[in-house]
Amino acid sequence: MPVYRIDLAYDGTGFRGWARNAGVRTVQGEIEAALARVLGEEVPLSVAGRTDAGVHARHQVASFPSDAKIDTATTLRSLRTMLGPEIALRDLTAAPEGFDARFSAVRRSYRYFIDESPSHDPLRSHWVWHRGEALDLGAMNQAAAAFVGPHDFASLCRAAEGGTTERRVESAGWERGAASGQRSAVSQPEGPSGVGYRESGVGLLVYAVSAKAFCHQMVRSMVALCVDVGRGKMRAEAVPEILDKKDRNAARGVAPPHGLVLWEVEY
Amino acid sequence: MPVYRIDLAYDGTGFRGWARNAGVRTVQGEIEAALARVLGEEVPLSVAGRTDAGVHARHQVASFPSDAKIDTATTLRSLRTMLGPEIALRDLTAAPEGFDARFSAVRRSYRYFIDESPSHDPLRSHWVWHRGEALDLGAMNQAAAAFVGPHDFASLCRAAEGGTTERRVESAGWERGAASGQRSAVSQPEGPSGVGYRESGVGLLVYAVSAKAFCHQMVRSMVALCVDVGRGKMRAEAVPEILDKKDRNAARGVAPPHGLVLWEVEY
Repeated sequence: MPVYRIDLAYDGTGFRGWARNAGVRTVQGEIEAALARVLGEEVPLSVAGRTDAGVHARHQVASFPSDAKIDTATTLRSLRTMLGPEIALRDLTAAPEGFDARFSAVRRSYRYFIDESPSHDPLRSHWVWHRGEALDLGAMNQAAAAFVGPHDFASLCRAAEGGTTERRVESAGWERGAASGQRSAVSQPEGPSGVGYRESGVGLLVYAVSAKAFCHQMVRSMVALCVDVGRGKMRAEAVPEILDKKDRNAARGVAPPHGLVLWEVEY
Repeated sequence: MPVYRIDLAYDGTGFRGWARNAGVRTVQGEIEAALARVLGEEVPLSVAGRTDAGVHARHQVASFPSDAKIDTATTLRSLRTMLGPEIALRDLTAAPEGFDARFSAVRRSYRYFIDESPSHDPLRSHWVWHRGEALDLGAMNQAAAAFVGPHDFASLCRAAEGGTTERRVESAGWERGAASGQRSAVSQPEGPSGVGYRESGVGLLVYAVSAKAFCHQMVRSMVALCVDVGRGKMRAEAVPEILDKKDRNAARGVAPPHGLVLWEVEY
């Protein structure tokens, strides 16, 4: 059966996550409802990243099989008119035979954004965790290095029923701001700016992590541990020890969902 | 009497504009209520830019006179805990004698953001006007040039009672994207990105305009005219003709408020 692929982005603020769930508003629920109206048939979506409530996507991929004769350009236009400003459909394309958004993905990348400045930026507060304190970037990178490689992440994950918590993290690290490129246009300080606004020059902290797959809460658990290290509450050396315990009770904290963005999915 | 100055930023989405207005939620109303609780007295705020409903501020300045003994650092901390994520107080400082946020300002700068890409960015849709079509930047700059200098802007303004519509625009112009610096972090394309996301590489169109003062709806009227020119609906040469008419009926369109940001106030 032909398979179709949807590339999309969304602001997760107003959704109870990706997964369809009767009675609550979810990204999958909204898109499947729109697809059903356009195609005249129910199509269940497969997805690359089942994001939690409040988590965003810059690049998410979903797919569905269908025998319907689908004109992708017309269907894309129709879907866009039905979906509000929170969901942006980038593209709808015919996928190669056997494509499945979940199982065909070879790499998922997430980013997590933290604002250290005393005063937050109201125009990006929905996708940035405002901490309002300086964090030790070197220590956080030392902590993040412990995640790289193959590990049993049982200390950082809620395990799926019957699933494993073994994953191979390809890369994980923190960067401060990258100044211009990482700043919201609305916060970009340029030349001598207004008094009292200088602090906006402080960059965002960005966590970038990639793996073939992640288990549930894994990235937000990593961020919580790194922040504990960055504020001096925990030694970086404690992080591999926590991993070794393979026990969810060893690291119960999770960073809030709104700072997390599914950044890219590769096939 | 001592005068205090507040530098702040806000997301205007959830407010009926700056100005206090019984029964509706406004930025001034929220801040004055918080100030009254902290100081134990009502203080009426003077403001640099009375933004309309839905308009944002990257840098806004307000001031108030008070005889109360105000510890600015403590007061700032208290106010911040009372105001939600939509309002960010950058600073609270003792201002020079005679300072008034409205009358002492020597320059106000606004920016207006337009997205030409077919698919919008859901994480910045609240401060960008998504047009989804390519606009003619050269023609728009030709139109904007007509605004520079001293003019009677009666065609572009709702006049205040008893007020003049004469203003002197110092600079006005459009730029496309400035690529990295002007992009939201969440939309920053970098290297080979996911299929279907390439279009996000198209930059934002940014209108930057400065004057000592603006009259009501002036910037949004300018933007509406420029967009009409940019999409070929109107010749750039028609813009000075419309200005010359000094008649609000000559140019009734206004761009939507959510793309407008009070960018900076100078003293």
